[in-house]
Amino acid sequence: MSSRFGTLLNVSTFGESHCKGVGSILDGCPPGMPLDESDIQPQLDRRRPGQSRLTTDRQEADQVTIFSGVENGLTLGTPIGLIVYNKDQRPGDYREMSKIPRPSHADYTYQMKYGIRASSGGGRASARETIGRVAAGAVAEKILRLGCGIEIVAWVSAVNTIAAAEADVHTITRDMVDTNPVRCPDPDAARRMEALVAQVKEEKDSVGGIVTCVCRNVPAGWGEPVFDKLEARLAQAMLSIPATKGFEIGSGFAGTRLRGSAHNDPFRAAEGRLGTVTNNSGGIQGGIANGEPIVFRVAFKPPATIGLPQKTVDFDGNPVVLEAKGRHDPCVVPRAVPIVETMAALVLADGALRQKAIMGFDHLRRSRLGGD
Amino acid sequence: MSSRFGTLLNVSTFGESHCKGVGSILDGCPPGMPLDESDIQPQLDRRRPGQSRLTTDRQEADQVTIFSGVENGLTLGTPIGLIVYNKDQRPGDYREMSKIPRPSHADYTYQMKYGIRASSGGGRASARETIGRVAAGAVAEKILRLGCGIEIVAWVSAVNTIAAAEADVHTITRDMVDTNPVRCPDPDAARRMEALVAQVKEEKDSVGGIVTCVCRNVPAGWGEPVFDKLEARLAQAMLSIPATKGFEIGSGFAGTRLRGSAHNDPFRAAEGRLGTVTNNSGGIQGGIANGEPIVFRVAFKPPATIGLPQKTVDFDGNPVVLEAKGRHDPCVVPRAVPIVETMAALVLADGALRQKAIMGFDHLRRSRLGGD
Amino acid sequence: MSSRFGTLLNVSTFGESHCKGVGSILDGCPPGMPLDESDIQPQLDRRRPGQSRLTTDRQEADQVTIFSGVENGLTLGTPIGLIVYNKDQRPGDYREMSKIPRPSHADYTYQMKYGIRASSGGGRASARETIGRVAAGAVAEKILRLGCGIEIVAWVSAVNTIAAAEADVHTITRDMVDTNPVRCPDPDAARRMEALVAQVKEEKDSVGGIVTCVCRNVPAGWGEPVFDKLEARLAQAMLSIPATKGFEIGSGFAGTRLRGSAHNDPFRAAEGRLGTVTNNSGGIQGGIANGEPIVFRVAFKPPATIGLPQKTVDFDGNPVVLEAKGRHDPCVVPRAVPIVETMAALVLADGALRQKAIMGFDHLRRSRLGGD
Amino acid sequence: MSSRFGTLLNVSTFGESHCKGVGSILDGCPPGMPLDESDIQPQLDRRRPGQSRLTTDRQEADQVTIFSGVENGLTLGTPIGLIVYNKDQRPGDYREMSKIPRPSHADYTYQMKYGIRASSGGGRASARETIGRVAAGAVAEKILRLGCGIEIVAWVSAVNTIAAAEADVHTITRDMVDTNPVRCPDPDAARRMEALVAQVKEEKDSVGGIVTCVCRNVPAGWGEPVFDKLEARLAQAMLSIPATKGFEIGSGFAGTRLRGSAHNDPFRAAEGRLGTVTNNSGGIQGGIANGEPIVFRVAFKPPATIGLPQKTVDFDGNPVVLEAKGRHDPCVVPRAVPIVETMAALVLADGALRQKAIMGFDHLRRSRLGGD
Repeated sequence: MSSRFGTLLNVSTFGESHCKGVGSILDGCPPGMPLDESDIQPQLDRRRPGQSRLTTDRQEADQVTIFSGVENGLTLGTPIGLIVYNKDQRPGDYREMSKIPRPSHADYTYQMKYGIRASSGGGRASARETIGRVAAGAVAEKILRLGCGIEIVAWVSAVNTIAAAEADVHTITRDMVDTNPVRCPDPDAARRMEALVAQVKEEKDSVGGIVTCVCRNVPAGWGEPVFDKLEARLAQAMLSIPATKGFEIGSGFAGTRLRGSAHNDPFRAAEGRLGTVTNNSGGIQGGIANGEPIVFRVAFKPPATIGLPQKTVDFDGNPVVLEAKGRHDPCVVPRAVPIVETMAALVLADGALRQKAIMGFDHLRRSRLGGD
Repeated sequence: MSSRFGTLLNVSTFGESHCKGVGSILDGCPPGMPLDESDIQPQLDRRRPGQSRLTTDRQEADQVTIFSGVENGLTLGTPIGLIVYNKDQRPGDYREMSKIPRPSHADYTYQMKYGIRASSGGGRASARETIGRVAAGAVAEKILRLGCGIEIVAWVSAVNTIAAAEADVHTITRDMVDTNPVRCPDPDAARRMEALVAQVKEEKDSVGGIVTCVCRNVPAGWGEPVFDKLEARLAQAMLSIPATKGFEIGSGFAGTRLRGSAHNDPFRAAEGRLGTVTNNSGGIQGGIANGEPIVFRVAFKPPATIGLPQKTVDFDGNPVVLEAKGRHDPCVVPRAVPIVETMAALVLADGALRQKAIMGFDHLRRSRLGGD
Repeated sequence: MSSRFGTLLNVSTFGESHCKGVGSILDGCPPGMPLDESDIQPQLDRRRPGQSRLTTDRQEADQVTIFSGVENGLTLGTPIGLIVYNKDQRPGDYREMSKIPRPSHADYTYQMKYGIRASSGGGRASARETIGRVAAGAVAEKILRLGCGIEIVAWVSAVNTIAAAEADVHTITRDMVDTNPVRCPDPDAARRMEALVAQVKEEKDSVGGIVTCVCRNVPAGWGEPVFDKLEARLAQAMLSIPATKGFEIGSGFAGTRLRGSAHNDPFRAAEGRLGTVTNNSGGIQGGIANGEPIVFRVAFKPPATIGLPQKTVDFDGNPVVLEAKGRHDPCVVPRAVPIVETMAALVLADGALRQKAIMGFDHLRRSRLGGD
Repeated sequence: MSSRFGTLLNVSTFGESHCKGVGSILDGCPPGMPLDESDIQPQLDRRRPGQSRLTTDRQEADQVTIFSGVENGLTLGTPIGLIVYNKDQRPGDYREMSKIPRPSHADYTYQMKYGIRASSGGGRASARETIGRVAAGAVAEKILRLGCGIEIVAWVSAVNTIAAAEADVHTITRDMVDTNPVRCPDPDAARRMEALVAQVKEEKDSVGGIVTCVCRNVPAGWGEPVFDKLEARLAQAMLSIPATKGFEIGSGFAGTRLRGSAHNDPFRAAEGRLGTVTNNSGGIQGGIANGEPIVFRVAFKPPATIGLPQKTVDFDGNPVVLEAKGRHDPCVVPRAVPIVETMAALVLADGALRQKAIMGFDHLRRSRLGGD
């Protein structure tokens, strides 16, 4: 189960940094939907390294191939294979493998879990694993957009101590987000963030940040009660992204400092349904969407791989000083934006199918309210 | 799937507020473990309403019955049925059912999802649903304690704007937590919290808070990579608890404001393994436990049901003023402490079984490091 | 997972022979459906012991209680708890527990798997476990009947060497099946079967038999390709019933002796769809229903518990002669009829929900055939 | 779920006949096991078309590539990607797509389920889908062989009306099976089968048959009670193979004609455990292995695609005569042998991991029998 996510629409990812490639199988996509690589590539391009001077200098094209499940431009309803071939397919020689577990990396824990680990590049703990999710999630985004008019937009709302001005969740678009390489729609904050990331990169250090995400037009009624609450699945999805340390929905941690009388979202009549006057709930009540924008925030720690010397120990416990070589991201949040969006899409599209299953039996119902 | 959690050790909950009862089925418990109701009742007692003047005045004894899966005091390896009978089993008459969805409650979303909802008490969205989880999680706690010496302790670290002094995660115990009804181990903060809750109750309003939890002695290697990362499953578990709005592990949102050089946890030689000098990772790296204490925090919003008048609309969109009657919790965090602990236990015990499955094939391995 | 079956509509069973009771949780039932105990009890009555002189003389009323998930006579969409309380809740003292594993029983294998086993009555391997399935499956039958007009009828087609004349799968009803206690619609064969069972009971021996089942009006398109093929899930469902040794669909094993030119089912125009001239496929092609009656057969071995002396060994390997005491079924197939029907209903109703999920996205499709 | 099988060790297959390729992801393989393509290719070679004059004349090399999850010849514990690239990757033009659903094929049912289908080659209903299973199952076979000394051998026991002499399940080997192209260890029957298949091929017709399979050295205790009984999972696995119509374990359908006194398997003292004198149970009691050889039989219908003219109707209901062109198998059972073996391996290896998970908690147990 460890590499699989979702009930009806589900994704299984595979691949390490230096094997033949990375990718995913998306199972459960509704049949007959137009789909080709151009639906998927844009989000992979927003995720790829080397896209701006804010990210790692490594250049990886990450071209996706639809391997199966689509014919003559239409989905067949069968598993959609999505593959990005690795350019460098030579794993390291394990005799030369580092004897030093990188601090705050997964080297040590993988070794303890498996008694073995990929010789280089972080294996499955590498950010490269997210390629399969982004590709599958881009398909989920299309299902949601075509099928239900849903829009998902994420952006960088903080880098280190620089917080952006609050964005308008009703109107923000990906175009507005992509006006600068840091993917922050507040131009002033974006400039300062950019400068900070450049400085930190120069200093061989790293910084963290926060990604905020809104999902608009999610129909009231999607989501499950109890363990598969929409916010619970979103939290799992987000905390499964490498380098994440926190998740909050609606009012989040700040909401703990409000009184109920201020925190509650009173209802109001909206077009054909009930809306809420405020949205401290973040669009979800009791695990189920209420029709308001779903808004959540994800905390990303500063990347663990830094060029600065670190005092640590090797696998045998001997003191060493580690200085990471190579080209690494000084800040991951700009590249995390499409990962957050596509993971949210996977959660919502699975919820969509599960709700369709129930609604297929509408004629069984004897409703209690309204026309009964 | 909506009412089930876990892969090998898994719990299914059932029951509404006014049906015959609430409870759960715990499947996958290792056989031959001593178990009786006295292993489970203490956590239910810490969860039950009416236990102090800080909680609702409703008195519910919530006595658990082990229904199946245990014989002569030993688990059989078969599904353990856990039931708490409801005292009041009369559902409301749906003709008298409220036409007003309570703000920030699940009345509206359940109605939109199902076209029907339990007539009173919140149905499955009620906190009463958590009884089944706490009962099952108390069994998981025993598996972890007997099988691996794991200790799980949660406490109230904030109520509204009152934050407790940082607790020592290595030494804090449930006894220390239970010295006051607010379950905050900082006596000074606890006094102020208690006063605030009493005042808010008087004012017919409510307040939120934060629960912090530590899991000690979790062996390095437990947890899964990718979607079932230990922090991802913990996040799902916590966000599935009613009234939660956020989750953070280790440094959490505050960690986004540190540089990598300050945030990284250097390794040090510990007894027979590697430890870390700091614990910003919160005991988990790449989804897998590293042997340090697992530390996380959960945000609870102020309860939605308050006696103060609220301007809202009814199901038909007509403006109304709602004043909730009845006895409700002004603050849920003291009662949430055992829920957080037992949900964490369910996550860890499932991870334990999954790791045992891999370790059963140790003789297959040709290790790369150490003796090879 | 061991006690759970189904993806969207799923059942978890629990309970041993001498614990508080047996039952199941049915999760995923569409909301708003009228349901009360009288929908469930008839199939339990057809399953219960002591209903005729052909079965064990033990009398068990097996009255079902709907524990949760239904209010004011309508399903809520939440987990439906179904419980039958055990009359005799005293487990045996394990010091008196039999040291002799019964031949062809699960005593030995449970002991080897768990290192422990229920002290009497067979525990989870007891036919009593099927109560939870039958109760849940009776609800599934109602979903299928109300929602889609599906009819499921099973009957005894053979007892030992006595085979019934072929029944007409298009017209056979449960009333026709229940005209005699052996549940065989061929009156002449039924008389001979009845006589044989009576004789075998007298001789303290047992006999096996075959149950045939038809599911009518299953819409073309239900079912999944690959591992969850409709016939694969039916096979799993049937082989999970105690005492079953075989499953065949359509032409089954006899079909292996036909040539393709004789075995193929040519299509013909039917009302608004394509039908087939013959039905060697048994209503399923490639795992997916084709709209024809689904017909399958299940082999039940002679019950293992017999009064005749058996030479065997005890757990320590010492030779013993075992003569089973008590009142046991000389032949299980008459009581197996409702178990086969309700398990089939669980498979089909889950398939129904899965197909509804896909069909909810029909507007996405650009069909290749017909109106395009 | 439709393309996934297994709980801890699980396989997901993907690919149609004319997409980029077919294959599978095997998740949950224990880490550190030596593995390369040469462990997998032999079973693919036994499955591939064109291997003898008994099969289709199509020549497909079906070379497997390990795509991920293995490094420097050792499994990493991460998902193992297994790919066979298709030679002909051009799907047909759907305007030229056949308007005639092939009798007893999945053309009609896929169209009804999905409203679309692969334009040629049968899509996912094609036998080509089994490549991914055989590749993954070959890895499972290695886990079982290295980890537990388990041997799995299948063979053709009947073709049409020609039945082979009963084989000795304790001694039969794959070498004995592969001495002739029909894979029947009875040389006399094999000769007659071979002649029949050649004749039927000449006549443009087809024949079915039966594959028998034995799994030796499966430890007592593997398997799950209730829905995941070992025989239930084997039945699902076998009925998920294209063209299968039946499954029986141990005495099977013939066992229904025995009395209990003849059918029961008395225990006897074996080396360090209990064995049984006879094996009508087929190595499984109550869903759990008893240590005896697991023996089951699978019925395969005659292939549906035949060159003889068939009177049928097109999708619009118009009468047509269909004569299939191309090169098709006159009999699938020789090629089905490795599919049956590898599917059995997937079931058993998943059961192995699940049992290891329980056994990891052995120190919790207070055993009732033996040393207590």
